[in-house]
Amino acid sequence: APLAGELRCRCVRTVSEVIPPRRLARVELVAQGPHCAEPEVIATTKQGQTVCLSPSAPWVKLIVTRILNRWVPA
Amino acid sequence: APLAGELRCRCVRTVSEVIPPRRLARVELVAQGPHCAEPEVIATTKQGQTVCLSPSAPWVKLIVTRILNRWVPA
Repeated sequence: APLAGELRCRCVRTVSEVIPPRRLARVELVAQGPHCAEPEVIATTKQGQTVCLSPSAPWVKLIVTRILNRWVPA
Repeated sequence: APLAGELRCRCVRTVSEVIPPRRLARVELVAQGPHCAEPEVIATTKQGQTVCLSPSAPWVKLIVTRILNRWVPA
């Protein structure tokens, strides 16, 4: 976990443009808490770029669901 | 990001018992990729404990949605 940022919100602003799920390596959902009044969605692209997504954006919820759904029980 | 684990799956097994969303500080969705054939859901509790959740478990999808939904546009 990043050193800085744990004591406050980690996202200053969120990107509005849609990022295709296949470009994402990781999506981190940080629940709201004493450090930050809002849940945050921090995505890391496969190129290692970190971007903040808006938790309320429908496409963000779609991405999260798509990542979860790609798991096929063995 | 953790140093180790990037080159293989980070979860050896997933917990089956339901964890109440309020106990979670963070949920990390790691998309499947060359390092791991399955998407992984790694949750960190507010006590700092890290547990792997099953991406296909309905309650896990519920937790993820609940974290995202708690954001009320300003």
